[in-house]
Amino acid sequence: MVRNDGRNDDELRPVRFTRGYQLHPAGSVLVEFGGTKVLCAASVTPGVPRWRKGSGSGWLTAEYAMLPSATHTRSDREAVRGKIGGRTHEISRLIGRSLRACIDLAALGENTIAIDCDVLQADGGTRTAAVTGAYVALADALTWMHASGVLAHPQTLSCQIAGVSVGVVGGKVRLDLPYEEDSRAEVDMNVVATDAGTIVEVQGTGEGATFSRATLNTMIDSALAGIHVLTRLQREALAAPYPKQLPEPKKSVKN
Amino acid sequence: MVRNDGRNDDELRPVRFTRGYQLHPAGSVLVEFGGTKVLCAASVTPGVPRWRKGSGSGWLTAEYAMLPSATHTRSDREAVRGKIGGRTHEISRLIGRSLRACIDLAALGENTIAIDCDVLQADGGTRTAAVTGAYVALADALTWMHASGVLAHPQTLSCQIAGVSVGVVGGKVRLDLPYEEDSRAEVDMNVVATDAGTIVEVQGTGEGATFSRATLNTMIDSALAGIHVLTRLQREALAAPYPKQLPEPKKSVKN
Amino acid sequence: MVRNDGRNDDELRPVRFTRGYQLHPAGSVLVEFGGTKVLCAASVTPGVPRWRKGSGSGWLTAEYAMLPSATHTRSDREAVRGKIGGRTHEISRLIGRSLRACIDLAALGENTIAIDCDVLQADGGTRTAAVTGAYVALADALTWMHASGVLAHPQTLSCQIAGVSVGVVGGKVRLDLPYEEDSRAEVDMNVVATDAGTIVEVQGTGEGATFSRATLNTMIDSALAGIHVLTRLQREALAAPYPKQLPEPKKSVKN
Amino acid sequence: MVRNDGRNDDELRPVRFTRGYQLHPAGSVLVEFGGTKVLCAASVTPGVPRWRKGSGSGWLTAEYAMLPSATHTRSDREAVRGKIGGRTHEISRLIGRSLRACIDLAALGENTIAIDCDVLQADGGTRTAAVTGAYVALADALTWMHASGVLAHPQTLSCQIAGVSVGVVGGKVRLDLPYEEDSRAEVDMNVVATDAGTIVEVQGTGEGATFSRATLNTMIDSALAGIHVLTRLQREALAAPYPKQLPEPKKSVKN
Amino acid sequence: MVRNDGRNDDELRPVRFTRGYQLHPAGSVLVEFGGTKVLCAASVTPGVPRWRKGSGSGWLTAEYAMLPSATHTRSDREAVRGKIGGRTHEISRLIGRSLRACIDLAALGENTIAIDCDVLQADGGTRTAAVTGAYVALADALTWMHASGVLAHPQTLSCQIAGVSVGVVGGKVRLDLPYEEDSRAEVDMNVVATDAGTIVEVQGTGEGATFSRATLNTMIDSALAGIHVLTRLQREALAAPYPKQLPEPKKSVKN
Amino acid sequence: MVRNDGRNDDELRPVRFTRGYQLHPAGSVLVEFGGTKVLCAASVTPGVPRWRKGSGSGWLTAEYAMLPSATHTRSDREAVRGKIGGRTHEISRLIGRSLRACIDLAALGENTIAIDCDVLQADGGTRTAAVTGAYVALADALTWMHASGVLAHPQTLSCQIAGVSVGVVGGKVRLDLPYEEDSRAEVDMNVVATDAGTIVEVQGTGEGATFSRATLNTMIDSALAGIHVLTRLQREALAAPYPKQLPEPKKSVKN
Repeated sequence: MVRNDGRNDDELRPVRFTRGYQLHPAGSVLVEFGGTKVLCAASVTPGVPRWRKGSGSGWLTAEYAMLPSATHTRSDREAVRGKIGGRTHEISRLIGRSLRACIDLAALGENTIAIDCDVLQADGGTRTAAVTGAYVALADALTWMHASGVLAHPQTLSCQIAGVSVGVVGGKVRLDLPYEEDSRAEVDMNVVATDAGTIVEVQGTGEGATFSRATLNTMIDSALAGIHVLTRLQREALAAPYPKQLPEPKKSVKN
Repeated sequence: MVRNDGRNDDELRPVRFTRGYQLHPAGSVLVEFGGTKVLCAASVTPGVPRWRKGSGSGWLTAEYAMLPSATHTRSDREAVRGKIGGRTHEISRLIGRSLRACIDLAALGENTIAIDCDVLQADGGTRTAAVTGAYVALADALTWMHASGVLAHPQTLSCQIAGVSVGVVGGKVRLDLPYEEDSRAEVDMNVVATDAGTIVEVQGTGEGATFSRATLNTMIDSALAGIHVLTRLQREALAAPYPKQLPEPKKSVKN
Repeated sequence: MVRNDGRNDDELRPVRFTRGYQLHPAGSVLVEFGGTKVLCAASVTPGVPRWRKGSGSGWLTAEYAMLPSATHTRSDREAVRGKIGGRTHEISRLIGRSLRACIDLAALGENTIAIDCDVLQADGGTRTAAVTGAYVALADALTWMHASGVLAHPQTLSCQIAGVSVGVVGGKVRLDLPYEEDSRAEVDMNVVATDAGTIVEVQGTGEGATFSRATLNTMIDSALAGIHVLTRLQREALAAPYPKQLPEPKKSVKN
Repeated sequence: MVRNDGRNDDELRPVRFTRGYQLHPAGSVLVEFGGTKVLCAASVTPGVPRWRKGSGSGWLTAEYAMLPSATHTRSDREAVRGKIGGRTHEISRLIGRSLRACIDLAALGENTIAIDCDVLQADGGTRTAAVTGAYVALADALTWMHASGVLAHPQTLSCQIAGVSVGVVGGKVRLDLPYEEDSRAEVDMNVVATDAGTIVEVQGTGEGATFSRATLNTMIDSALAGIHVLTRLQREALAAPYPKQLPEPKKSVKN
Repeated sequence: MVRNDGRNDDELRPVRFTRGYQLHPAGSVLVEFGGTKVLCAASVTPGVPRWRKGSGSGWLTAEYAMLPSATHTRSDREAVRGKIGGRTHEISRLIGRSLRACIDLAALGENTIAIDCDVLQADGGTRTAAVTGAYVALADALTWMHASGVLAHPQTLSCQIAGVSVGVVGGKVRLDLPYEEDSRAEVDMNVVATDAGTIVEVQGTGEGATFSRATLNTMIDSALAGIHVLTRLQREALAAPYPKQLPEPKKSVKN
Repeated sequence: MVRNDGRNDDELRPVRFTRGYQLHPAGSVLVEFGGTKVLCAASVTPGVPRWRKGSGSGWLTAEYAMLPSATHTRSDREAVRGKIGGRTHEISRLIGRSLRACIDLAALGENTIAIDCDVLQADGGTRTAAVTGAYVALADALTWMHASGVLAHPQTLSCQIAGVSVGVVGGKVRLDLPYEEDSRAEVDMNVVATDAGTIVEVQGTGEGATFSRATLNTMIDSALAGIHVLTRLQREALAAPYPKQLPEPKKSVKN
C-alpha cells in the first residue's frame, strides 16, 4: 500500500532546482521538494568575522528562516518577536556546518560567503531541502567569485552535499516526509551526506517513542539511497552554464 | 531623451500579478514592478488584538520585510539583529493604513487579516508595489473567507488601492523609479490612491534638496495617472477565478 | 464659526521659543505650540558614525521621545519595554531628514550634532513643533561650535526649516490641530518647508477616509502660510544674542 | 573656607517646587535643587500588577530616567540601547520603596499610582531631588483621586518623605553635593527620611576609599538636618491649593 | 595504546551521582563524568504553559546553561548578552525531548516539571551528562510529588534515560570524550537511549570531515554499551532512599 | 529567648570557605553562610574595557546571578527573559565596588579580573556572602597571576573586605538573617567593611517601616562586630597554600 501522495516508501518527491532565481546574489537557487520551496542564496562579502581576522582564511555562515505565510497557519515573524527561536538557530547551524564540509576555507582568502535559506512554502523537510539547494547556490557563487576576480584561481568544492529526511510513520520507514506524514511520525531523522555516501550529519529523534538499532539502520539506508539520487540531480542542474551574465574580470576586492 | 531602461518619464515598468503563489494563505500574490518582486500574502486568523476585543469588529494588520538576498549587497536579517529597523516599521504601518481604507472592518466579525509583504527582489518602489499587490491578495482573502464560512455574507472592498513612487531625477519628474534612479533622486515621493483618484497617502521628501509647490503638483499628477493604470491592471488580474480550490462551505470559525 | 479654542481655521496656536532652557547642550530650546511643549536640544560630539568615518564630513542625527506623563493617559516608557515603537522611529527620522536639508555637513568636519526632541507635554502636532524648535536649537549650536573652536569658520544654515500640521476636521481644512481636533480628523497632514516656501517633506494620510486632489491643494496652501509665519517667529527668537555665556575660543576639539 | 558656590558645608542649595507643571498627570511637580531639575509626575491608572490582582489593595511604582541632554556630555538614550542600565534600575527601585513608606496602599483600592521622575537637567543629587519632588506630586495626586471619585474618602499620607545627598569632599563632610563636588567625593551617601527624622533608606559608598564609623555618624547628622529643612519646604509648597482645576466629583472609576 | 587519562577507548570516565545536592527543588542531583560536573534540578510548579491549558495533562521543560567560570577560559553570561545562544537552545531542547520519552505527562495533572541543568565545571560531554543526571533528579521529583500530595497515585517512569558522547579521535572511535579529545575530534556524536537499549536521540556531526557508514555503526555500538553501564549506575544511585525529609502528605496543590 | 535556629541575636551562622572548588578560574571559592551557598570565581583575562584602554591600569568587574533552582520556589532564568533584573544589577555593582576598594588596579597592568558570584542555594544574605567569598577568590587569583607571570611582582590586597546582613526582626536587631527572618524583617541592612573596621558600603532600607537613628547605630555596631569575625575566618582560610597546582612561571600574557 502506497502513501497518500502515491509514492513508495523509499521514493523522493519531485525535486526541482531553479538557478539564478534572484538577480543580486552570486548564487541563488529555488529548490523544491514537492510542496516545499526554499530560496537559497549565496552572497559574497569581503572580510571575515572578528575572531577570524588575520587568519588569511575565509568563512561560510548560514541563516535559515521561514516566511510567516509559508506554513499551514501563519507563524509569527521572528524579527517582530525580537529574537530567533531555538529551532531556527539549530537549523541555521546545521546548514552552515554541512556546507563547510565541502569547501576549502583557506582558499577563499578573507572573504565570507553568507548562505540565506528562506522557506517560501513549507511542506516538510525544509532543512534538508535547504542544505541540498544551498549546495547548488554555493557552487554558483564560487564560479562568480572567480569570474569577478575575488578568487585568483578557480575553486571547486571537494564533494557534493545533500540532505533528506526519513522517518517512521505508522511503523513504516519512509523517505522524504511531507508535512502530513511528518506531523504524525514516531521517529524523525535528518541525514546530510556526500555524493560518495559518507556522512556529514545524522540527527534522529523519537517523537514520544524510542526506536531500535535495527530501525536506525533501515532509516540510514533509506536516507543514503535518497541522497545518492539528490546528488545526481544536483549534478544535472549544475551541468547548465552559470545562469546570469558573469562580471567582467577585474581586480580582487581585496586590493 | 528617454530613461536608461527605455521608458518615458511618465511610464510604468512592466507590472505582473501572479495570484495563488503560495498554497497556504487565503490570498497570495507575487507582484512584480520590473525587477522589484514582492510576495504579498493575506492570512486570516480568528480573534483580534487585545485592545479590540469585544468590539465585534475585525482588524487588518501588515508586516513588510526584505529577504537579506533581495538587495544589491546583502542586508542584515532583522530577526538576527533582534529588532525591526525604523524603515521597516514605517513601511509596515503605511501598508496597513492604506489597506484599511478599503475594507469594512465591522463586517469581518472578530477576525484578523494579516498582510505579509516580503520582498524577494528589490529594484526600487518596493513599498508601493507591496500596497498594490497586497490589495489583490486581500481581495482573494475575502473570497476565501466567504467560501469557508468565516464570513456569513460575501464582502467586497469599498474601492481599489494602489500605490506608486514618483521622483525628481536630474531635474525631471519621473514615475516608478528603479533603484538606479531612486538612489540619485533629488525628491522621492510615494502616493497611494484609489481607483476613483482620491488620495489615501502622500509622502514626499527632498533628499538633500527642497522642491517647489509646482514640482509637487507635477509629481502628484504623474502618480495619480500611474495609479489609474495600476488599478486597471488589478481589475484584469482579478477577473480570473480564485486561483486555488476553495474550501467547502462550513460553519463559521466563530461558532 | 470658530474652533473650540476660538481660533480661525487658518490660525496658528500661540508659539513660544525659550532659548537656553538647559545648561549643558550647545543649543537648547523649549518650543510651545499652545499646550504642546517640546524640549529640543542640539549636542555636539566629536566623531561621526562608523559608515561616515574618513569622509571629512560631519553628521546630524535626531531622536524624538515622549515623557510617559506627557499624554492624556500615561504612556509606557519605551526604554522599559526595551524597544522603540514604529511611530517614534518615523518621527525621529523625519526630524533628522528635515534638518539635514539646511546644513552643510561637509563644513562641520568629522563632528556629529545630535538633536534630541523630548515632548514634555503633548497636545497635537508634536513632530512639527519639534522640527520648528530644533531648527532654533541647531542655529544656537552652530554659534557655540564656532565660539568654542570646533568650527574654524562661522557657519550659517542655508535656509530656515519649520513644520506644521494641517488636517480636515468635520469637512473643514484646519491648521495646527490640537489633540482634540487631531483625534477626530478625517485627514492628517504634516508639512515641513523652508522660509522660501519650498517643501522638504509632505506626509498626508486619510484616517479611515480618502481625500481629493483639491483638498490636498488647500491643505498645502494652509500649511505653507503657517510655515511662513513660523519662520518669521524663528527669526525674531534668534534676533536676541546667544542665551548663555559662550566658551572662550580655544583650539578645535579635533586637535 | 566656603564651597565653590559659596555655601557652607551643611547648607542646601536653593530648592524650588513648581506644582502643576504638566496638564495631564494627577500630580506634576518640577523640583529644583540648584541646577538639578527633575520633573516628577504622579499618574493614576485603574488596576494593579498581575501579582496583586484580587488583593483589594493598590500599588505605587516608580520610574526614573534622564534626558540625553540633561548631562554635561550627552548620554545615550536607554530606549535606543534597548535596555535600562543598572543605575537607572537602582534609582527607580529606591524612589518606589521610599514613597511606599508613606502611603496606605490598602486604602487606594485596586488602583496604581505611577511615579515618573525625568531629569531635565543634572547637577548632582538627582535621585534624592526626585524622591523629594515626587512626594509633593504624590500628595497632589491623592487630592485629585478624591476629587475625581477614585477614592471614596480623602486620604492623607502617613508622613512626609524627603531625601538628600551628603558626602566627604576633600576630607570634609558636605551636604547636597553638586556635580562638581560629587565627581571628586571620597564618600557618597544618599539618605531618605521622614519629617519625624526616622530613616527610610541609607546608602553610603566609599569611592575608592573607606570611611570611619565617626564619619558615617557625621554624614547622617548632616543629612537628617537637611531633610528637616526639605520637609518644611514641602509643607510650604503644599500650603497653596491644588494647582489646576479639580475634576467635578463623579462615580469611582472602579464602578 | 591508551588515552591521555589512561582509559581504554570504550571506557567511561568515573561517574558519580550526588542526590539531594540542593535543599529546595523536589529533585536535585550533582552528576559528575570525570571533570564534568552538572547540577541537575527538577522543580515542580502548578499549572502548564498556555497552549496546554485545559488539557488535563502536565508538561516537562528543560533549560541548560553554563556558569561563566565553568570553562577553560571564562565565557560570557548569556543573561548579560540578553539572549540565549544557539548551542544553549539546542541542548535545552535535547534534554527536554529526551526526558519526555520516559514520563506519562497525562498522569501528572496540570503540573509542570522544570528541569534545570547548570554546568558547574565543563570537561566535555556536558549535554549527555546533563540528560543522565536529570533522569535521576526527575525520579526523585516524582517521589516528592506523591509524598506531597501533588500526585494522588505514585508514578514511575516508563524507562530509564541516559546519554553519552562518542567520537572519532585520531582515527579511533572513543567513548565519553573529555574536552582535550573533544576539541580535536574528527567526528562528534551524542546518543541518548533507554535501559532497554532503544534509542531516543542520535546526533552525529563530522567536524571538518565526513564519516563512513561503518564508523557510524561502531560509534553507536560503543555509545549503547556505555549507556548500558550508565543506566546500571543510575539504578544503584536510586537504590538509596529519597535524600531529604519528605513532606507530610497534604492536599493537592491543585485544590 | 533565642532565634529559630538557636543563635543569639548577634551571632553569625556557621561560615565555611572551600577554596579551589572549580578547576579553571584563577580563584574559585564556595562560601557558605549556613544554608546560603555562593560559588565565587575570579577569572583573569588580558585587556580592559574600551573606556580604560591605554591607561596602563587594570580593571575588576563583577556579576552576580542565582541558579533558578537556588530559591524556595523556582525563579525564572534571566537569560531566558532576555534581560537582567534590577536586583541583579544592584548586587553586581555592589560586589564590584566593594572589591575595587582593596585592590591596586594600576599594579595589574591592562588585565581584567572578572568576579562571578553564582548562588547555588539561597537562604538569606546572598549578596554579603558573595562579597565575603569573592574576597578570598580574589586573593587566590592574585597568587595565580604572579605565578603565571601576568604580574611581574607579587601583589597583595590593601585590606580585607567582608560583608554581612543585619536587620530588625520583631523589634530586635539581629545579625546575618536567614530567609525565614529576612522575609519578615522590618528593616534590612547590608554592610561591607574592612578588617580595620572602616566602612565600604552601607545600605539600609525600612521595609514598610522607618527606623530611628538609634536603631541604625545598633545595627551598624552589630554588623561591624560580625565583619570582624568574618575577616578572621578569611585569614584562617587563606592560611593554607594555593589549592591547586600553580602554573610554571612564564612570560607575561602582555608580551
